[in-house]
Amino acid sequence: MSSSFGTLYRVSTFGESHCKGVGVVIDGCPPGLQLTEADIQPQLDRRRPGQSSFSTDRQEKDQVTIISGTENGRTLGTPIALQVANKDQRPQDYGEMADIPRPSHADYTYQMKYGIKASSGGGRSSARETIGTVAAGAVAEKVLREKFNVEIIAWVESAGDITAAEQDMLTITRQQVDASPIRCPDLNAAAKMQAMIAELKEAGDSTGGIVSCVIRNVPVGLGEPTYEKLEAKLAQAMLAIPATKGFEIGSGFAGTRLRGSQHNDPFVAKDLGLGTATNNSGGIQGGISNGEPIYFRIAFKPPATIALPQPTVDFDGNSVLLEAKGRHDPCVVPRAVAIVESMAALVLLDMALRQEARKAMSF
Amino acid sequence: MSSSFGTLYRVSTFGESHCKGVGVVIDGCPPGLQLTEADIQPQLDRRRPGQSSFSTDRQEKDQVTIISGTENGRTLGTPIALQVANKDQRPQDYGEMADIPRPSHADYTYQMKYGIKASSGGGRSSARETIGTVAAGAVAEKVLREKFNVEIIAWVESAGDITAAEQDMLTITRQQVDASPIRCPDLNAAAKMQAMIAELKEAGDSTGGIVSCVIRNVPVGLGEPTYEKLEAKLAQAMLAIPATKGFEIGSGFAGTRLRGSQHNDPFVAKDLGLGTATNNSGGIQGGISNGEPIYFRIAFKPPATIALPQPTVDFDGNSVLLEAKGRHDPCVVPRAVAIVESMAALVLLDMALRQEARKAMSF
Amino acid sequence: MSSSFGTLYRVSTFGESHCKGVGVVIDGCPPGLQLTEADIQPQLDRRRPGQSSFSTDRQEKDQVTIISGTENGRTLGTPIALQVANKDQRPQDYGEMADIPRPSHADYTYQMKYGIKASSGGGRSSARETIGTVAAGAVAEKVLREKFNVEIIAWVESAGDITAAEQDMLTITRQQVDASPIRCPDLNAAAKMQAMIAELKEAGDSTGGIVSCVIRNVPVGLGEPTYEKLEAKLAQAMLAIPATKGFEIGSGFAGTRLRGSQHNDPFVAKDLGLGTATNNSGGIQGGISNGEPIYFRIAFKPPATIALPQPTVDFDGNSVLLEAKGRHDPCVVPRAVAIVESMAALVLLDMALRQEARKAMSF
Amino acid sequence: MSSSFGTLYRVSTFGESHCKGVGVVIDGCPPGLQLTEADIQPQLDRRRPGQSSFSTDRQEKDQVTIISGTENGRTLGTPIALQVANKDQRPQDYGEMADIPRPSHADYTYQMKYGIKASSGGGRSSARETIGTVAAGAVAEKVLREKFNVEIIAWVESAGDITAAEQDMLTITRQQVDASPIRCPDLNAAAKMQAMIAELKEAGDSTGGIVSCVIRNVPVGLGEPTYEKLEAKLAQAMLAIPATKGFEIGSGFAGTRLRGSQHNDPFVAKDLGLGTATNNSGGIQGGISNGEPIYFRIAFKPPATIALPQPTVDFDGNSVLLEAKGRHDPCVVPRAVAIVESMAALVLLDMALRQEARKAMSF
Repeated sequence: MSSSFGTLYRVSTFGESHCKGVGVVIDGCPPGLQLTEADIQPQLDRRRPGQSSFSTDRQEKDQVTIISGTENGRTLGTPIALQVANKDQRPQDYGEMADIPRPSHADYTYQMKYGIKASSGGGRSSARETIGTVAAGAVAEKVLREKFNVEIIAWVESAGDITAAEQDMLTITRQQVDASPIRCPDLNAAAKMQAMIAELKEAGDSTGGIVSCVIRNVPVGLGEPTYEKLEAKLAQAMLAIPATKGFEIGSGFAGTRLRGSQHNDPFVAKDLGLGTATNNSGGIQGGISNGEPIYFRIAFKPPATIALPQPTVDFDGNSVLLEAKGRHDPCVVPRAVAIVESMAALVLLDMALRQEARKAMSF
Repeated sequence: MSSSFGTLYRVSTFGESHCKGVGVVIDGCPPGLQLTEADIQPQLDRRRPGQSSFSTDRQEKDQVTIISGTENGRTLGTPIALQVANKDQRPQDYGEMADIPRPSHADYTYQMKYGIKASSGGGRSSARETIGTVAAGAVAEKVLREKFNVEIIAWVESAGDITAAEQDMLTITRQQVDASPIRCPDLNAAAKMQAMIAELKEAGDSTGGIVSCVIRNVPVGLGEPTYEKLEAKLAQAMLAIPATKGFEIGSGFAGTRLRGSQHNDPFVAKDLGLGTATNNSGGIQGGISNGEPIYFRIAFKPPATIALPQPTVDFDGNSVLLEAKGRHDPCVVPRAVAIVESMAALVLLDMALRQEARKAMSF
Repeated sequence: MSSSFGTLYRVSTFGESHCKGVGVVIDGCPPGLQLTEADIQPQLDRRRPGQSSFSTDRQEKDQVTIISGTENGRTLGTPIALQVANKDQRPQDYGEMADIPRPSHADYTYQMKYGIKASSGGGRSSARETIGTVAAGAVAEKVLREKFNVEIIAWVESAGDITAAEQDMLTITRQQVDASPIRCPDLNAAAKMQAMIAELKEAGDSTGGIVSCVIRNVPVGLGEPTYEKLEAKLAQAMLAIPATKGFEIGSGFAGTRLRGSQHNDPFVAKDLGLGTATNNSGGIQGGISNGEPIYFRIAFKPPATIALPQPTVDFDGNSVLLEAKGRHDPCVVPRAVAIVESMAALVLLDMALRQEARKAMSF
Repeated sequence: MSSSFGTLYRVSTFGESHCKGVGVVIDGCPPGLQLTEADIQPQLDRRRPGQSSFSTDRQEKDQVTIISGTENGRTLGTPIALQVANKDQRPQDYGEMADIPRPSHADYTYQMKYGIKASSGGGRSSARETIGTVAAGAVAEKVLREKFNVEIIAWVESAGDITAAEQDMLTITRQQVDASPIRCPDLNAAAKMQAMIAELKEAGDSTGGIVSCVIRNVPVGLGEPTYEKLEAKLAQAMLAIPATKGFEIGSGFAGTRLRGSQHNDPFVAKDLGLGTATNNSGGIQGGISNGEPIYFRIAFKPPATIALPQPTVDFDGNSVLLEAKGRHDPCVVPRAVAIVESMAALVLLDMALRQEARKAMSF
């Protein structure tokens, strides 16, 4: 049951890099929602490689088709199948790599786990798998926006050792994020990142980065303690994105150095109920949203597939020098922005549905 | 379904701070395992408050009883119910706090989510809830140890701004961890931490810290991509522990600054299959264990309940100065060590069972 | 995950016949419900053996205790653990049977599945396991009654070849059912059943029977097609009761002989929306409740444990003549009435919660 | 989560009658299985309408395509997406019926549950939805056959009041079943059934029927008591098939009239472990397979959509005389045979995977 996520808004993805198509089945989408491909395509376009010289040049158009679950542009409450055809289904570029597991890639572990693996392109571990997540997330985001005016904005905070200036959680917009192709709203830092990545691409190397995300207008009360605390499900969701190595929410690792008297967020009276004067909690207390903005950061490692020659061994243990062919992202964070937002939407909508059930049946 | 975790080794916890008892039901424990309370009690003792002057003084004996699921000291394959009685079931110390949500605690969000909350002690958000997790984790750990010789060792890496020297992942033992009451294997740092915490306790304040964990002898092939990658479930498990704010695995956030050529872990031939020369991956590639040690770090915030007076508002929005009564931990990381290990065991055993099903039915 | 049931109202039972206790953890009960042991005990008493000479004489008091999840007599929205102590924890009466699997009992299959089995009393396959179900069902029933005025009434329709007169689905009450110890509202038939069962008891034999159940005031719209159609979950729930062999809803097997023109239920205008003039559908169409009474029947086989000598073989295949010791029910249907009602309540409440989530989030 | 089924072999179906396509995603299929469309198509063909004059004339070719999850004709262990295009996507024949809920059909309940419904053809409640189930079942059946030599054979036992002679559970083959287009292996009865159905078709009426199913070579030990007893999951699976009203296993309802001394199945020594001399248990004891053939019966009601005029009311409660247009099955049982077999395969494979995990990790 590895490729499903959620309890009431449940998504099940499918597809490898070079099969007939990739996609997702959404079970539990609320009925009556106005929905066409145009609601989904923009996030797929933001996720797509080849948007700029800073990501891989492969032209994947990634046009989504709604196979089922809507009629006359409205959801029926039945499973919504979304699909994107794979244009090029012929495994080719990866020939030599079939016998050599790429260091820090999934080739070795997939082979050991399944006793078989897709002969090329990473199969299910490829970033292409995230198309289903992003498509389902776009639908979830629309529900959340229409019901609660929820806003989810992720951006590139750092690439390699270049870090953007701190952003204003309360005002940052997706437009600001998309002002640069690298999706860093600090245009100064963005320019440096782009230069650095262009260099890396030339050199056949790669780099990591950090994506930040804020979610505004979250209803109070979302999250299902104890094992499905809101931050716990967000953490699972983010670490399920390929190439992620870390997650922190609110004060995160830096907060461990503070005193309780410094770290605590005092309550203040607000228009509707209470708010907090500070937000070290990152919008979640005891595993439940408190109405303040939720914000978190995700660490992405440098992509494993690089053109530079790497000394390693083949599946039989023989020493080899691997030079990966094909065109690969030198840095995934610009594309990861849409994936992070989508994953966040999947978590939030599922939690919102569960809380609505509770509210309706409480005494 | 918030209080359940796992697919094949499924645990369901119950209990608030001041009801009749806390515990867990384990569904799916392999049959035939030798199991008595003596296998479970040690980890509960390590989790228990009042072990030293560095944690709360409340004497909770936390004696576990096996209610069901074993006969003649062996598991039957049926649900194992484990229970710890609450000695003091009378809510008392928390009187005034009933009307004042503690800053950064779960009082406010529980009240808003459920429309009701336990009148004292944090109810289900109390650290006491973790007893069920630790008990179930101790059972899981025994299964993993007997089947695969898995070793899980967590320790206090930092408390506040005091950080231990780097530890050797391959050799660190639980004995070394327990050499100091604060469970920091660097005894020099441990002494400083203890002095700092004693001071904080005196001052009525608290501090955070970081727990590190390594898991050795993990079979290759555990983890269920894509949404249940091994690191994703570990992240969920760790962020489900009260007071956690971050998780990172392998190279983590620091790894985002590296080049791919620096970060990749070259494969090397080992006795059984392949290993890696370095371990920036933290023992997991593509969401699946690769046989190398798994290691990760968890950020714990400073405990929210402090004696120092805090300006805040009550549930009605009136300004108040809150001075928390009762005795509370100035720092949770020493006790968190056993919880981290237990959560890790829950994740691993569930994944091991799922992989065994696959292996047995593969072609 | 065999001992859990439900998605939003999720119950996890535990306990064998001769361990320390049996019980259940309920996760997802709506908060704020007034709940004490007195709400649960009556159905446990109706389920209990030894209520009359028609069932086993063992005196099991089965007093339930709420371990967690309530405070001041109201539910907190947290897991509710309910427990009943086992009075006699010493396996004794079953000595000889340890080596001889009782025909048509679970001794053989449990041993083969788990490689171990409880040495006595059927362990987890014992009817005693149903205590957890009945306790959780009593809570669910209260929620359904208070929220929707749902009424669930089961009764003994037949025992052996003695069948009660047809009952009025719209008016039958639990009081009418309990008017005879055998829980057959046709007192004439009840008397015959009792005489027959007394004879069987004397003879050391047993008989089967059929339980009917009607559920009134079910909200329209419950059931989650396609795999979790309302009748599908009811069927699972009923076949999960020990000793059941069949389930039919509405027109059932007899309806297969009708023409569509005879079988179809024409719609008629009612006060609130539509109703149907007849009810061959049994209150469910397309897997979803239509507001009419839901009714169904469950077949119970004759209990397998009988005193009459049976030629069979032991675990090693040696021919033996088995004479079961101990006191056993000659007919389970009188006690099964409460179990059927409880299972129905578990299904309905879970479906109601899921539908409320949908309603709240529809467009 | 209504359209998913299974824990380790988990299927998620999608598609209405008149959207772009219908299909299924299978998560958890064992890797390395040889699999092409040719393994799946035969059961889809047996399920397809228009196979003979006894079912609807619509020509649905129902050609399945494997979208993902295989490479070079072998499964990768990743999600297998299977899809069948809908040839005619224009809702048409159903015009008038949009305002009139068909008696005993799902039109009314779907509208009430979701607040919207597919304008034609029953949408998700259409028999067309079962394509996904049958496709996934065909894959499951191949796994079971190759691993355990499991044989699953269903047949038409009765149509209306015409009943076939009793069949030999140990020898009946799918070839015998397919010898008549109505899939009744008693060719004498089959001829009568066909004549009767031809008459009904002419008359614009419909009839019900009973499908029997036997499963041979089931490994001992499958089934997950207590809530997921093997018969409980079979019951859920069968009642999830459209138009079903009842399920019985082994001695079923008739067995309720027997004495325990008549009904019990004495054990006998067999080559491998024990068998039973009789099989009133239907191959399952205590919720767990005992190695004997599993057999059960399913009641199908007469199809609700008939051409005969029916007095009923429209959605607004106005009296109308409904004459359904379009071509519809007068009797579903011939096509249901493949669906029953597929559902059985889904249940068994999931249980087999779960038991393999247990066996591998037992002590």
